[in-house]
Amino acid sequence: MGTAKLWTDEEAAADPRVKAVFDDIRITRKSEFVNNFWRALASQPALLERTWTSIKQVMLAPGTLDPLTRELIYIAVSANNACTYCVHSHTAAARAKGMTNEQHGELLAIVGLAAETNALANALQVPVDAEFLVF
Amino acid sequence: MGTAKLWTDEEAAADPRVKAVFDDIRITRKSEFVNNFWRALASQPALLERTWTSIKQVMLAPGTLDPLTRELIYIAVSANNACTYCVHSHTAAARAKGMTNEQHGELLAIVGLAAETNALANALQVPVDAEFLVF
Amino acid sequence: MGTAKLWTDEEAAADPRVKAVFDDIRITRKSEFVNNFWRALASQPALLERTWTSIKQVMLAPGTLDPLTRELIYIAVSANNACTYCVHSHTAAARAKGMTNEQHGELLAIVGLAAETNALANALQVPVDAEFLVF
Amino acid sequence: MGTAKLWTDEEAAADPRVKAVFDDIRITRKSEFVNNFWRALASQPALLERTWTSIKQVMLAPGTLDPLTRELIYIAVSANNACTYCVHSHTAAARAKGMTNEQHGELLAIVGLAAETNALANALQVPVDAEFLVF
Amino acid sequence: MGTAKLWTDEEAAADPRVKAVFDDIRITRKSEFVNNFWRALASQPALLERTWTSIKQVMLAPGTLDPLTRELIYIAVSANNACTYCVHSHTAAARAKGMTNEQHGELLAIVGLAAETNALANALQVPVDAEFLVF
Amino acid sequence: MGTAKLWTDEEAAADPRVKAVFDDIRITRKSEFVNNFWRALASQPALLERTWTSIKQVMLAPGTLDPLTRELIYIAVSANNACTYCVHSHTAAARAKGMTNEQHGELLAIVGLAAETNALANALQVPVDAEFLVF
Repeated sequence: MGTAKLWTDEEAAADPRVKAVFDDIRITRKSEFVNNFWRALASQPALLERTWTSIKQVMLAPGTLDPLTRELIYIAVSANNACTYCVHSHTAAARAKGMTNEQHGELLAIVGLAAETNALANALQVPVDAEFLVF
Repeated sequence: MGTAKLWTDEEAAADPRVKAVFDDIRITRKSEFVNNFWRALASQPALLERTWTSIKQVMLAPGTLDPLTRELIYIAVSANNACTYCVHSHTAAARAKGMTNEQHGELLAIVGLAAETNALANALQVPVDAEFLVF
Repeated sequence: MGTAKLWTDEEAAADPRVKAVFDDIRITRKSEFVNNFWRALASQPALLERTWTSIKQVMLAPGTLDPLTRELIYIAVSANNACTYCVHSHTAAARAKGMTNEQHGELLAIVGLAAETNALANALQVPVDAEFLVF
Repeated sequence: MGTAKLWTDEEAAADPRVKAVFDDIRITRKSEFVNNFWRALASQPALLERTWTSIKQVMLAPGTLDPLTRELIYIAVSANNACTYCVHSHTAAARAKGMTNEQHGELLAIVGLAAETNALANALQVPVDAEFLVF
Repeated sequence: MGTAKLWTDEEAAADPRVKAVFDDIRITRKSEFVNNFWRALASQPALLERTWTSIKQVMLAPGTLDPLTRELIYIAVSANNACTYCVHSHTAAARAKGMTNEQHGELLAIVGLAAETNALANALQVPVDAEFLVF
Repeated sequence: MGTAKLWTDEEAAADPRVKAVFDDIRITRKSEFVNNFWRALASQPALLERTWTSIKQVMLAPGTLDPLTRELIYIAVSANNACTYCVHSHTAAARAKGMTNEQHGELLAIVGLAAETNALANALQVPVDAEFLVF
């Protein structure tokens, strides 16, 4: 499967832009593991650079939401977009950041219920209450 | 707009099942305000009861995720499902539970980036790494 | 709103291909009413013709599913695609074909529950049981 | 694949809440087969219980829509949400409830055409006709 | 996998309607290869005929958009709908029509960015500017 | 409508980061018009900056796809994500870049047909042909 080839470390080493991103992934994550998403993006160095920069800024920079909360939100979006790869990678990331079974269960319950009430509100085409329009 | 009529309080008072849910919404939320989602669902008492019970269990019962985090996850799903009503109602709920402008910005950034990388992973059909398959 | 203009009957009358479709809509439905979807498509006669032909074949030709069941399925898809126009038009069509309040409520319950369990199965990435693979 | 482990019958037997749901699934369906969806949900007993209760109420309780029609609607939603598991399980369920090849073909035609016209109406942003606004 | 069987050439040869479509696919594409999408649709001859006719008209008939541009648009939609089969088949088709690695990269960048800003605009529920309402 | 306020030029002028982006939008587009998407994002300067930088790089930088083709792809994604704002803004942008009525019609036809065959392939769960697996 896959519509782009997965770059090996040898191939990545031969392209300075790809090598720089792979190196930074390893340094940032303190791990030798570079997952397939980045290997599939390596054919497109500009897109690879921009995407990794965004991930670092959005998921890893200091902020008001803790790292685990960010992963939970990421999983929620990925499940609703039926992204097999993203659900697997971000669920693994959430577990690595300490997600407990209880937290996973609560996340699943919210994701499911939100999808259900989204479908109901869209089927009923409920008009937005004036009370919600604060701007 | 809307594919079902919005029940007034007078109409709700005339149906014991609908009245019981509306009363419980008011008691639970300590507010007289019953928003349009519940008024649109009132034509279907069994669905109204089940949905409200689920919302209470998933969004309000004690658990490991705090109430604001639950709302952030709800907004994330609703935005990806293009549910106008749900985005408005749950963003208002998140603000009522203390969501700051900084938290909203971080949520938006994650929701947008997740949608972007979901689209990329789906377009590339990236194979799931063996490392992510813990079961 | 709208990204294409809505053709009036006068404008439609001036284009033989558009006029032919509008005439056939009126004859087929035994009504003078031509709804906005067809007026917005009129700028693209080939697409207008093909779409109307498909609708007639899929929704109106004799078959094993009765006309109301077809509309219920149409609403289910439209709600999940957040198509405001389609939800309104096909809910109106279902009512015109006899959909009762009870049937609408059961439809809503299935649409909501399916969306919920879809999200759960996608979040859990449940492997398909061998028992379901009949081919 | 999968982001949660699939519980065996032995593991289920050791948790009274999970065992009770698995037992009820078997009694209700008059079959020993418990499909993977429930085995993946077993890690979350509260969610497992609530989801099974909803399925029984929505899909199996007496009502105005017959059991096969309910499955057709479920398939329609699942296909649009790209839920591999759900499409497989509910197509199998529909066949078990008597879905013929002709009915499957008509369902597919409606699901495809609805997705097409949803995309067209969303691309054209067609304004809703006043005639459809009955509330 | 699959919820309908894939027809072999022998089976197709026994049904005149299916045979006619398979023959036309081969003549039109100047290739013996008939891909699985058509083999899965063969159980439904009317749907098979209509879908192939639409594909020929929309993707192959002379027009103002060149064949490669049409495939790029097709991939964009398919990625956002998480259609594994469609992403694979239309990416292969685009490559066969000359898509370069640079073009694929630019397509991916647009598809990802559009998904991101769609999510942002839906989360912010940005009101449409009057300047965009030309009709 | 809207879940974030729309910044006026006066408010934007008071925040150096927001002012810099608004100035660059005006210089880049050679127009005084700053559309609501950017005004709604202004509450989140970091996200505003990153999103505008991405748009400039992906939609405006020299490349192998011409500017109009990029807009057509953007519209295709936006229609499938039911993003009202994005469909309006990018259809207006495509028209400003010369999109003809014929091109719009061909785009609509592809977007609709892709959505239809996506739904069919997902409902049929068609296995990917080995011929498409080039990596």
